[in-house]
Amino acid sequence: MIESTKNPGVKTLTGLLKKAKNRNEEGVFVVEGRRMFEEAPLEEIKKIYVSAGFLDRYGKDKNIADKLEAVGYEVLRDDVYEYASDTKTPQGIMCIMKQKKYVAESILEAPNPLIIFGENIQDPGNLGTIIRTAEGAGVTGIILSTGTADIYNPKVIRSTMGSIFRMPVCYVSDMVATIGAARARGIEVYAAHLAGKESYDAADYKTASAFIIGNEGNGITKECAGAASKLIKIPMKGELESLNAAVAATVLMFEAARQRR
Amino acid sequence: MIESTKNPGVKTLTGLLKKAKNRNEEGVFVVEGRRMFEEAPLEEIKKIYVSAGFLDRYGKDKNIADKLEAVGYEVLRDDVYEYASDTKTPQGIMCIMKQKKYVAESILEAPNPLIIFGENIQDPGNLGTIIRTAEGAGVTGIILSTGTADIYNPKVIRSTMGSIFRMPVCYVSDMVATIGAARARGIEVYAAHLAGKESYDAADYKTASAFIIGNEGNGITKECAGAASKLIKIPMKGELESLNAAVAATVLMFEAARQRR
Repeated sequence: MIESTKNPGVKTLTGLLKKAKNRNEEGVFVVEGRRMFEEAPLEEIKKIYVSAGFLDRYGKDKNIADKLEAVGYEVLRDDVYEYASDTKTPQGIMCIMKQKKYVAESILEAPNPLIIFGENIQDPGNLGTIIRTAEGAGVTGIILSTGTADIYNPKVIRSTMGSIFRMPVCYVSDMVATIGAARARGIEVYAAHLAGKESYDAADYKTASAFIIGNEGNGITKECAGAASKLIKIPMKGELESLNAAVAATVLMFEAARQRR
Repeated sequence: MIESTKNPGVKTLTGLLKKAKNRNEEGVFVVEGRRMFEEAPLEEIKKIYVSAGFLDRYGKDKNIADKLEAVGYEVLRDDVYEYASDTKTPQGIMCIMKQKKYVAESILEAPNPLIIFGENIQDPGNLGTIIRTAEGAGVTGIILSTGTADIYNPKVIRSTMGSIFRMPVCYVSDMVATIGAARARGIEVYAAHLAGKESYDAADYKTASAFIIGNEGNGITKECAGAASKLIKIPMKGELESLNAAVAATVLMFEAARQRR
């Protein structure tokens, strides 16, 4: 049992939770909580840390015990676990996971793709919610600008509710070029924009389609909007200037899902 | 200029920002930031606090100066303002606003209503986002269970992006009875539920309609689901168990908006 917050394993763990640099250097990320542990694909888990209390409570649950044994785990004294944890009410289990590396080309190649381009989305909760919602709407992959928040930030991961394990996501440094590559493959790329004339629900998303979602404060850049096949609008009532980024993404993705059913 | 964090006005302000009890005793709430100040209806502002820095920068802007003069304001030294503020990067202006009191009956009486029943929504960001999205979708009013977060919590207010000034919202202690009252008036009340058979987009929301949105972790209670006219489902791809509460609300509200256009 690890009984000191100065233990090298604990230092590694807190470094991975707090710093994207550490995560990327080691090609890993950390997920927390029982549910994330249960959804984590066995072959992608590198290491498991549990609190003594978690082991007491759940160590005899066969599914949990089998998975713990299969990967191998270390036990942290409860207060050491709490020190290492990123959450307010720690559940007592964290897994270090291998990052999966997707490239834009493979995401563009999906059959009858429905793709999200996320440009400079800053809020981790928004990004995680978009990933979660995308899975529910049948999105085939997500392509993010390098100015977007890190998908392996613990807050993003929590908001994905497990979709992080299943949704193909990649980062690209040149979003305009990637939008161009998508269009060259016959994917219609739609940008919800104040200058859009046609309502989002008048377009046909049954064939290869993609949506660009912009930054929370500034929307889609001129360059990306210019690269899109078409500007569309989400008609709004009241005096609202805009929708939350995850909400706008939801409206578009679920309209596509509706048409594709 | 107020130069001490011990000033009674500053104490009142921090109390109002932090405690629902203080807000409700005085029948007020606090909004922060230039945009909220600009959107705040003049006749609902009770008092304005600005930082010395804000006054230096914007005091000569005619629109701002006129509104400040019309209501009356106090100036806080910058560090005192920062102490009082609820935000990480304070913009230098807060307004104490009168709470508006709506009753469920008036919300149910709206012409061709589109209503959200929110049951025990806990996350302030979700609640604020639902209020903001509701305005955009043309929702006529929101009825919340008393177990729901406080709409005057500063985080809720920030997430509404000004919709808090425009959307009728009330709390009811007996949600089941209020759902019954809605149905008695001919409003169809839909609950998105795992047991729902019909897809949400197969129902007709062009006439008087309402949606029940449940708690983030537990969904809609058995009692409220039982009181609904109909259980519906949001078909989902992947291995997702549920959508985020604000996302589910978005899917339903924007389908209603689409049908009503």
